[in-house]
Amino acid sequence: MFKNFISKILQHQKVAVFSHVRPDGDCLGSQVALCLWLQKNGVETSAFNEDSIPENMGWLLDFFPISKPMEAELSNFDAFVVVDGNALHRFGETAEKISELGKPVYMIDHHPDPDDIFEEFVSEVEASSTCELVYRLYAEHDPKQIDEHAAKAMYLGLVTDTGSFQFDSVKPGTLHAAADLLDRGGFTPNQITEKIYSSRPLRQLKLLSLALDTIELHAGGKISTITITRDMFEQTGTSNEDTEGFVQYPLSVEGVKACVLFREDGDRIKLSLRSQSDIDVNKWARKFNGGGHKKAAGAWHSGPLQTAVDEVINAGKEQL
Amino acid sequence: MFKNFISKILQHQKVAVFSHVRPDGDCLGSQVALCLWLQKNGVETSAFNEDSIPENMGWLLDFFPISKPMEAELSNFDAFVVVDGNALHRFGETAEKISELGKPVYMIDHHPDPDDIFEEFVSEVEASSTCELVYRLYAEHDPKQIDEHAAKAMYLGLVTDTGSFQFDSVKPGTLHAAADLLDRGGFTPNQITEKIYSSRPLRQLKLLSLALDTIELHAGGKISTITITRDMFEQTGTSNEDTEGFVQYPLSVEGVKACVLFREDGDRIKLSLRSQSDIDVNKWARKFNGGGHKKAAGAWHSGPLQTAVDEVINAGKEQL
Repeated sequence: MFKNFISKILQHQKVAVFSHVRPDGDCLGSQVALCLWLQKNGVETSAFNEDSIPENMGWLLDFFPISKPMEAELSNFDAFVVVDGNALHRFGETAEKISELGKPVYMIDHHPDPDDIFEEFVSEVEASSTCELVYRLYAEHDPKQIDEHAAKAMYLGLVTDTGSFQFDSVKPGTLHAAADLLDRGGFTPNQITEKIYSSRPLRQLKLLSLALDTIELHAGGKISTITITRDMFEQTGTSNEDTEGFVQYPLSVEGVKACVLFREDGDRIKLSLRSQSDIDVNKWARKFNGGGHKKAAGAWHSGPLQTAVDEVINAGKEQL
Repeated sequence: MFKNFISKILQHQKVAVFSHVRPDGDCLGSQVALCLWLQKNGVETSAFNEDSIPENMGWLLDFFPISKPMEAELSNFDAFVVVDGNALHRFGETAEKISELGKPVYMIDHHPDPDDIFEEFVSEVEASSTCELVYRLYAEHDPKQIDEHAAKAMYLGLVTDTGSFQFDSVKPGTLHAAADLLDRGGFTPNQITEKIYSSRPLRQLKLLSLALDTIELHAGGKISTITITRDMFEQTGTSNEDTEGFVQYPLSVEGVKACVLFREDGDRIKLSLRSQSDIDVNKWARKFNGGGHKKAAGAWHSGPLQTAVDEVINAGKEQL
C-alpha cells in the first residue's frame, strides 16, 4: 500500500509534516509517528500545526516538537506531507499556500473524497484512523523501527479515533495493530488513556453538567441534541476544547439513531453530528456546507442558536 | 493451561455452570461461552444465576438460557463449574450448598486468593477477565469452535472488565484475543458496545447532570466527592441502578488520587470508594464497616449526609 509513497518520500532531504487545525489525537499521533519514521530513515523533518495542542496531549511534544508554521521558512523544504485530512484548507491559512511553492505535497488520510493535488497519497476510508495507516507504513517498511515513542503516538490515535475501540471502524487488523504497539512500545493502555481521559479539569465536568441538562429528543426519539452556549463557557471558565467527547452523551440515549451537538462559537454555531445507524451524517452535514464521515461529521450554521436547531433537525428528519 | 481442566470436565455427562450474584458482563459472557463450549463437546449443560440479568445484557440469553437455580434439581448434575469468582458464597445461597452434594466443583477465574475446594481450576490473576481465560480454553482445545455467539459473549466480558480496553490489565494477548473474536464471530465492536453503553434512558443523563454539579475537591485536590440525594432521584424519576459508573467522574479529575460517591439510600448513606493511586480504599472502607479491593470498595454510614461527608473525608485524609 505504501510502496510508491515510501520510495518517493525518502528521496527528499527536508520534509515538513502538517496536522489539521483544531488538532485531535489521531492527527497529532500520526504526525509525530510519521516524523519519527522520516527522521529514522534519514530525512530532516519538521512538524507544524497552526493551532494549540490540547493540554492532555502535550506529552506528545516530548517525542517530537510541533510548532506553528511561518510562511517564510516553508520555502526551505523539499516536500510536504499532510496527515488526517485530504484538502489543504483543513490545515490552516499557511498550509493552504504550500501548493504555490511548486514542491510535491503528499497525504495520508482516512476521510472520503480527497483533493487531486497530491504527488502521492494513501487514502483509506476503511481505516479506523490515520494512525492505523501510519502503523501499516511502519509494518510494511520495517516494523522494528516502531519504538516506544512512535508506538505511544500511534496508540493515541487508535484510541481516540475509535472511541476506545468501540466504533464499527474497528476491524481485527485494528486490534492486532494496537496489540503490536503495546508489545513493541512496552506499555499498558492506561498509560495513554489516563492522560487522555483521567486528567480532566474540574471545570470541564461542571460544563458537562450544564450541557447534559440541555439534551432533548426529536423525531420520535430518533434524533437527540445537546447544546453548549457562550454563557455556559463563561459560567464555568471553559473553552471549546473542554467539550471533547460531549457528543457521545446524546448519542448514548436509548432509541437514538443520530445526534447533533450545537456549540456557540464566535458569531456562528458549530455543529457536530454523530450517527449509530444508517443515517449518513456526512450527507446531512453537507446541507450546511460541512462534511466528514458517514458516522461523524461537522458543519457550521450562521445562527442564532434556535434557528440552527430548527433547521438542522428539519434537515435530519429528511434523512430518516 | 487448560489440559487437566479439559480432560476432566469432558468426562462428565451433565454439568451446571454458575455465574456470580449481581452479575456483570464478564461473569455472564464467560458463563454463556463456556456453556456453548461444553454443549459443542457433548456435555449436557445448564446455566444458573441467582439474580436478575442486567437489562442491557438480556441479548445473551438468546445464545444460552440462564435460569435461577432450584436446590432440588442440583442433585441431577454430575459436576459444577463456577466462573469469575473463586469462593462459593460469591454465587449465592443455593450455590453455596453444592459443596455438600459430593460432586466435583470446577472453577475459572481471575481474582486473587481462591478457595481450596475445587477439583480442578484455572486461576489467573494476570488475566484481564474471565472471558479472556475462556477464550484461551477455546484456543487451546479447538479455536474453530468459536462461533458468532461464543465470540460475542466473550467479547462482552473483555470490553466490560477492561473499561473498554483502557485498564493496565490489557496486554498484547488481550487485544489479539479480541481481534480473533471479531474475526471468527464476524462482527464489529459497536454491535456489542452500543447494546452495553448506548442504550441509557434519558433520565439517567439528567441524574448525571445533577450529580456532576455536586463534585467537590478536598485535601488539596487529592480527594474528590460526588453526592446523589433522594431529591435527585425523585426529580429525575431514577433509582439506584441509574448511578452505575458515576463514581468514575470524580476520579477522573486531574490530581485526584481517590474519590467517594455518597448516595442517600433509605435511612442510610451508601459509600462507594475508588482509588487510582497507592491509597488503599479497602482499609478506608473498613473504618466504616465496609470493604472490597485496594482500588474499589464500599461501605455504609448512618447519616445524615453532611456528617457522612465530613467523617469519611477526615478518615480519608489519614490515608494520604
